[in-house]
Amino acid sequence: MSNKNNKICTRQEDYSQWYQDIIEAADLAEYGPVKGTMVIKPYGYAIWENIQKILDQKIKKTGHKNMYFPLLIPKSFLTKEASHVAGFAKECAVVTHYRLKSNDKGEIVVDEKAKLEEELIIRPTSETIINSVFSKWVSSWRDLPILINQWANVVRWEMRTRPFLRTSEFLWQEGHTAHATNKEAEKEARKMLKVYKDFVEKYLAMAVVAGEKSESEKFAGADRTYTIEAIMQDGKALQSATSHNLGQNFAKAFDIKYYDQNNAFQYVWQTSWGMSTRIIGGLIMTHSDDKGLVLPPNIAPIKVVVIPILKNKEDNTEVLNFVNKVKANLRGVGNFEIDERDNVTPGAKFNEWEKKGVPIRIEVGLRDIENNSVIMVRRDNSDKQSVGLKDLAKTVKENLKDIQDSLYKKAVDFRLKRTKIVDTWEEFVTEIENNNFVLAHWSGDKEDEEKIKAKTNATIRCLPFDQKKESGICVFSKKPSKQRVLFAKAY
Amino acid sequence: MSNKNNKICTRQEDYSQWYQDIIEAADLAEYGPVKGTMVIKPYGYAIWENIQKILDQKIKKTGHKNMYFPLLIPKSFLTKEASHVAGFAKECAVVTHYRLKSNDKGEIVVDEKAKLEEELIIRPTSETIINSVFSKWVSSWRDLPILINQWANVVRWEMRTRPFLRTSEFLWQEGHTAHATNKEAEKEARKMLKVYKDFVEKYLAMAVVAGEKSESEKFAGADRTYTIEAIMQDGKALQSATSHNLGQNFAKAFDIKYYDQNNAFQYVWQTSWGMSTRIIGGLIMTHSDDKGLVLPPNIAPIKVVVIPILKNKEDNTEVLNFVNKVKANLRGVGNFEIDERDNVTPGAKFNEWEKKGVPIRIEVGLRDIENNSVIMVRRDNSDKQSVGLKDLAKTVKENLKDIQDSLYKKAVDFRLKRTKIVDTWEEFVTEIENNNFVLAHWSGDKEDEEKIKAKTNATIRCLPFDQKKESGICVFSKKPSKQRVLFAKAY
Repeated sequence: MSNKNNKICTRQEDYSQWYQDIIEAADLAEYGPVKGTMVIKPYGYAIWENIQKILDQKIKKTGHKNMYFPLLIPKSFLTKEASHVAGFAKECAVVTHYRLKSNDKGEIVVDEKAKLEEELIIRPTSETIINSVFSKWVSSWRDLPILINQWANVVRWEMRTRPFLRTSEFLWQEGHTAHATNKEAEKEARKMLKVYKDFVEKYLAMAVVAGEKSESEKFAGADRTYTIEAIMQDGKALQSATSHNLGQNFAKAFDIKYYDQNNAFQYVWQTSWGMSTRIIGGLIMTHSDDKGLVLPPNIAPIKVVVIPILKNKEDNTEVLNFVNKVKANLRGVGNFEIDERDNVTPGAKFNEWEKKGVPIRIEVGLRDIENNSVIMVRRDNSDKQSVGLKDLAKTVKENLKDIQDSLYKKAVDFRLKRTKIVDTWEEFVTEIENNNFVLAHWSGDKEDEEKIKAKTNATIRCLPFDQKKESGICVFSKKPSKQRVLFAKAY
Repeated sequence: MSNKNNKICTRQEDYSQWYQDIIEAADLAEYGPVKGTMVIKPYGYAIWENIQKILDQKIKKTGHKNMYFPLLIPKSFLTKEASHVAGFAKECAVVTHYRLKSNDKGEIVVDEKAKLEEELIIRPTSETIINSVFSKWVSSWRDLPILINQWANVVRWEMRTRPFLRTSEFLWQEGHTAHATNKEAEKEARKMLKVYKDFVEKYLAMAVVAGEKSESEKFAGADRTYTIEAIMQDGKALQSATSHNLGQNFAKAFDIKYYDQNNAFQYVWQTSWGMSTRIIGGLIMTHSDDKGLVLPPNIAPIKVVVIPILKNKEDNTEVLNFVNKVKANLRGVGNFEIDERDNVTPGAKFNEWEKKGVPIRIEVGLRDIENNSVIMVRRDNSDKQSVGLKDLAKTVKENLKDIQDSLYKKAVDFRLKRTKIVDTWEEFVTEIENNNFVLAHWSGDKEDEEKIKAKTNATIRCLPFDQKKESGICVFSKKPSKQRVLFAKAY
C-alpha cells in the first residue's frame, strides 16, 4: 500500500496491485507496524460492523448465544488433539514471559525471572480452550445441545500477508456446539453453512459454491468440513466461510461425556464454524472495478452521498438551502452523507466517493433548483438521471435494490462463465492456467490430489453439494470417479 | 467460584465470598484454565453486549468512529514514553516466538529457531501503537481532530484476580483523539467523562463521584486523569471509567506534528478514555442482595420472566394457553422470557430467576385464569400484586421505570449516607476503618498522600468536581489545603 496519489492501477495491468490500490484509495486499511498486521480504518471497520450486526442476528436467531473465552491457551491444550496441533503449531504466537524490566544500561528488556512455567499460545482458533470448559458443563443429556458463539481476534503467524485476505491477526466469529448425536451435529454444521451462504449472497452479493472439503483440505481436527467458495475477478477461489462436523475428536481429547436417557455414558458430537474479516477481501475483489471500490447497498456503510455543486458564495447559500430539502426527501433510504466541504472541488469529491464505492451519488447544482430536481448517478453502471424531488426517496430505494440485484446477478454470471466442465487432462491444465473454476472427475485418491496440485497449483475447493452424482474417470489418473469436484487456484 | 449448590453466602458473613457466589449463582462467568483469566458466560456476556450497544451509540453520537488496531505492540514502542513504560512494563504478556515443533521425544515444544528479533507485547492499552499510526496521518490542521474508538481485549498480568473486577485479560473500549489545541483536548477529556457518568447513572443506576485524579493516581503518560468513582456496598470505591488529557506527551514521543493555519509546526494535543468489563463487577456490587443478583431494567438482558405454575397435565394446557395471552399482552415492555420447563418446580424457578436478577417475575396459575389476571413480583423490593391482563403492559412498564429509579435513588442515598466529612486525623482513621467515603482536606503533598495510604490503606479517589473550594488544613499534615478531596479504600 505505497500508492501515495491514490491512483488505482487497472486489473489488467497488475491485479494484485489493483487490490492494494483499491484498499488504499477507499481508505479501508493499512499495514500495522508489525509485519503481517493490519490497521482496519474507520471506513473498512464500518463494513465489518455491518457484517457483524447482520450475521450476529442470524446466529442468535438460530439459537446460539454469545460468550467470551480467554485469548491465551496453555500449550498443553493445543497438543491434545493430534491432527489439530499438526495443523496449528507452525503458526503460533507464543507467550513465554509476563514482565519487562530495566537492565543495567537502562534498556527495557524481558525479565527472565518472569518466565512462565508453561508457555501460552495466542488462540489461532478456540476449539481446545472451549472444549476444556465444555467438559465441565456437560454431564447429562439435559445439558445438550450447547450452542455458543464468540466474536474475537485470533492470531496465526503468516509469512506472506495481504490486507484482509491473509493477516497474522484477524477478526472473526467462531461458533462452537455440542450435541447428543452425530445426526444433530451434522444438521447443525450444514445449517450454519447455509446461514453463511444466504448471508453472503443476500448482503454481500457474492456468488459462492457450497460443498464439502476433501480429506486433505479439511479443518485440522474435523471429521468433515463444509465450505462456501467464491470466485474472484482473477478467477481464483476464496474460501469465504467454513463449518466443521468435528465428530467426537475433541470430545475424546477433552473427555466431554454425558449420560444419555438410558443412563449410558456417551461422548458428545460437535461442530465449529467461522467467518472472518477475510470476507471483506472477497467483497472487494468480487465487485470493484478500475475506478475503485464497489459496494452492494445492503452492506455499504454509506448508501447515498449528496454533493452540492458549490461555486461562489452567493449561489452557495441557495444550493445549501436546497440540499436541506433534498435531505428531508431522503428520509428512509438508509444511511446517507452530505459532503459540504468547501476546500474540495465537486470533481474531486465525485472521484473520492467513487473510490469509496458508495452505491448512489446525488449532485445538487444551481440549475437543479430551478427544476426542483437532482442528478442521480449509480456507482455500478454510471447511469445518470434527473430525479424530481418528490420521487427522490422512491427512486433511490428502487435503484439501491436494483444495484444490489445487478451486482449479485453479475457475480453469478461471472462464476458461471468462468466455470468449465472438462474431461481431459489437457483441457484441465489449460482451463486452470486460464484461471477458471474447473469441474472435473477425481478418483478420491489423496495422492492424485497432491500431484494435481504440484503440477498445476490447483486445489480441490470442494465437492459441490449441487453437483449430480455421475460416474466417470479421474481427469488425472483415469481411475473411476463418482462425481465431478471443483478445482481452482486459491487465495 | 467453588460454590456447587448455588447457595449465596450473606454480605455480612463474607462480602468477598458473597460477590463470587452471586456470579456463580447468576451464571455470569467462571475462571478460565489460565490463572487470572475468566470465561464470560452467555448471561454475563449479554450484559456486556447491552453496555456495548448503548455506549457505542453515545460514542458515535459524539463524533467518534470505530476502528481496529493490532493486538501486538513492538517492545520498543512501549518504551518511548517514559512514565508509560514505568506504569505498564511490570504487567506485560510478552510474545517471544512464533512457532512450536515436535522434539525428539515427540513432545511439542517452542521452536527456538522461531525467536522474534524484537519481542512483542500484548496490548495492555493502545496509546503507543495508535500514536505510532497517528503520526502518519497528521500533517495539517485540516487533519484534526482525529476522533476514534476501538472495542478490544487487553492483557495486564495480574497476580491477584477477581472475576470482572480484576482479570489478566479484560474487554473494553478505548477512545483515542488528537486535537490542535490543549483547550480542545481538555474539553474532549471532560466531555467523555460526562458521557460515562450519564451512562452509568442512567443505565446502570450507579451513583458515582466525578473528579480529577491526584498526581500519583493518574494514568501513566497523562497530564490529567478524570475519573468516576462508585461506592460498593462494602464502602470501597470502584474506579468505573477514566478519561485522560494526555497533553503532548505521546505526541512528542511519537512525533505527531501538524502545520497550523499560520504555517507553524505544532505537536498535537491528545486524550484517551476507557470503560471495561470491570464495570460489570461494579454493577453487581451496587445493587445485588443476599438473594442474588439485582439488575436495573435499563441494562437487564431479560426484563420480565413469566413462570407458568404447572401442576398436572390437564390443567397445564389451560395454563399454557393463558400464558400465550399473557405473552400477547407483554408486547412492547422489552425482552421477556417464558420459562416452560417441565422438569423444574415453580419454586425452584422463582429462586433461579431471582438469583439472575430479572427485574420482574410474572406468575401464572390456574386461579389467575379465572380472574383474567397474573401475579407480578418485583425483584428489588419483593412487592407482589395482582394485575389484570388488560393493564399488564402498562403496569409492567411503570414498574420497570420505578425499579430503575428506585435502584438509582437507593445507590445515591447509600453514597450520601456513607460519605463522611471529617476534620481530624482520629475521625479520618475511624471513618476509613468503617469503610466509608471520606471528604477531608489534603495539602496536595504527594508524600502526605503516600503516608496516609501506608497508614490506612485509603487512597485519594479523586478531587471531586462538585466540591466547593474552601481553605482548610490537611487532615494528616496540618499543612494548608485548598479543598477537600475524596479518600476511600478501593478495589
